Amino acid sequence: MAMGEFDLIARFFSRPVRRAVLGGGDDCALLAPAPGQHLAVSSDMLVEGRHFLSTVPPLRLGHKALAVNLSDLAACGAEPLAFTLALALPRLDEPWLGEFARGLYDLADAHGVELVGGDTTAGPLNICITVFGQLPPGQALRRDGARVGDVLWVSHPAGGGIGDARLALECFRGQARVGDADWPGVRAAMEMPQPRVALGLALRGIASSAIDLSDGLVGDLGHLLRRSGVGASVDVDALPASPALRRQPPALRRECALAGGDDYELLFSAPAAAEAAVQAAARSAAVAVSRIGRIEAAAGLRLRDAAGSVVGAAPRGFDHFSA
Amino acid sequence: MAMGEFDLIARFFSRPVRRAVLGGGDDCALLAPAPGQHLAVSSDMLVEGRHFLSTVPPLRLGHKALAVNLSDLAACGAEPLAFTLALALPRLDEPWLGEFARGLYDLADAHGVELVGGDTTAGPLNICITVFGQLPPGQALRRDGARVGDVLWVSHPAGGGIGDARLALECFRGQARVGDADWPGVRAAMEMPQPRVALGLALRGIASSAIDLSDGLVGDLGHLLRRSGVGASVDVDALPASPALRRQPPALRRECALAGGDDYELLFSAPAAAEAAVQAAARSAAVAVSRIGRIEAAAGLRLRDAAGSVVGAAPRGFDHFSA
Repeated sequence: MAMGEFDLIARFFSRPVRRAVLGGGDDCALLAPAPGQHLAVSSDMLVEGRHFLSTVPPLRLGHKALAVNLSDLAACGAEPLAFTLALALPRLDEPWLGEFARGLYDLADAHGVELVGGDTTAGPLNICITVFGQLPPGQALRRDGARVGDVLWVSHPAGGGIGDARLALECFRGQARVGDADWPGVRAAMEMPQPRVALGLALRGIASSAIDLSDGLVGDLGHLLRRSGVGASVDVDALPASPALRRQPPALRRECALAGGDDYELLFSAPAAAEAAVQAAARSAAVAVSRIGRIEAAAGLRLRDAAGSVVGAAPRGFDHFSA
Repeated sequence: MAMGEFDLIARFFSRPVRRAVLGGGDDCALLAPAPGQHLAVSSDMLVEGRHFLSTVPPLRLGHKALAVNLSDLAACGAEPLAFTLALALPRLDEPWLGEFARGLYDLADAHGVELVGGDTTAGPLNICITVFGQLPPGQALRRDGARVGDVLWVSHPAGGGIGDARLALECFRGQARVGDADWPGVRAAMEMPQPRVALGLALRGIASSAIDLSDGLVGDLGHLLRRSGVGASVDVDALPASPALRRQPPALRRECALAGGDDYELLFSAPAAAEAAVQAAARSAAVAVSRIGRIEAAAGLRLRDAAGSVVGAAPRGFDHFSA
């Protein structure tokens, strides 16, 4: 007998809620942000072939669907509260749903966020999550606060870097290869991104601007620079890279680091005098950060090598309609 | 030249926001609910062939995508504030997007809600909206408040009824026919539902429970009864019906009214003594309401005719995975 929509919600997505006033099962969920706090809201939709491959295990897909949304809260310095899940499924595959729900809830538990509502329907596989966070008025990390002279920073795993998610995609596409020992870590970079929520919170009052890396460093930095009305130089030799990425040919390595996409690390600016505070914030969040450039008055982005020479043109950021 | 994702957002979905602290263009939107108010949240996902037909004009689709979400706020008695839009599009069809955005914004303007963020991507057509409303603590219309002896009410257009959306679907399917004069109204019932936001607000403190009719009267009433721990009798002869539906064969008429789906009217209970208050609320909201039954202690739903005799079994509610 086919499992119906309401059975599906009851079985896989109906855990008791504690932070919401009224949780799943009514027309709306009711949230009560702490008195005086602003509510931060973000939606991301994941489509097969665009945001994940059919090869992704459902546990990892559940993780990633929430992770990319939490990453938006991190980029605003917001404290995660809750999320809604809207899910279109081509069929009712109970083992798949069980694994998907497990990946989703494991990450939700790790960040103390609750699933408070949503929708399920039949249709081509599509996952739409909306996340809610809170933060004190005036303390949001915004895209428009970078100032000339600020240092540009990027977060990354200790001993790792950015670009591994793209490297994994190129391996799946047959355009790159990594050694057997490197593959699990490279693949996990694409399928199990870790949203930098603790770092975002720790950077409140320190970072002058922030954005999360979802479409590639060059594209996302471009948004930040345009919104802030400034330009920047980036030292391509300072971009953090994993040992696996460092073993790739230079052109691929640069493409992955500069235009990779799917990193879900934080790119942020801070006054030069705040370097110790940035490092302390990173330590408190148990994540590494690297200085990768500087905010400049001249519009646009200049890529330089360690010697300061301008090298090549910036590749375009990833765009879902033209890539 | 293909229009990219960011151009699409800038061109069609970037109007200035007034009610949000920080609107589209950053990682999150920031909302500031009025002090002490709870935030009501709901998500609905619309998939072609399930929630709308390929024949729907894009202006009406934009309207409906927001309307079904506002209807959830109405069913909670919440005041609409804002919404996010996540949109997967198979191609960049600019005239289509222009019309879709117009239908969306026209309804948003009518209800004073702002588009504060979202996501666009390539993929099979999918529209996921999350709406936000606010309401004072303890004043939400909930599904679990119906009490034995309460009267059951349903809203509907003056001179019209419920079931026309299903009748329109049956006409598109070739299973029913209506006269040329009736067709525009019947079709509009399916494609341009009017969320009963004003009625929901007016029913705060009057209705004991409420739900919006999205899956059909019997199915939605079933949710309300189960959550409230009560049963009900419904007088099938008291169900409001449009002249077009009244001209249909009795079996089809009953199917449309009882299990139609897509009505987006409010089904609610209120103490018998509140009849005058319910009627006044409906007048203030410029919508009609009809008494259709009564809450009873015995579990389950009994369908009766005007003489009080039990007639037939209740058809099932619409379920997206088994219908």
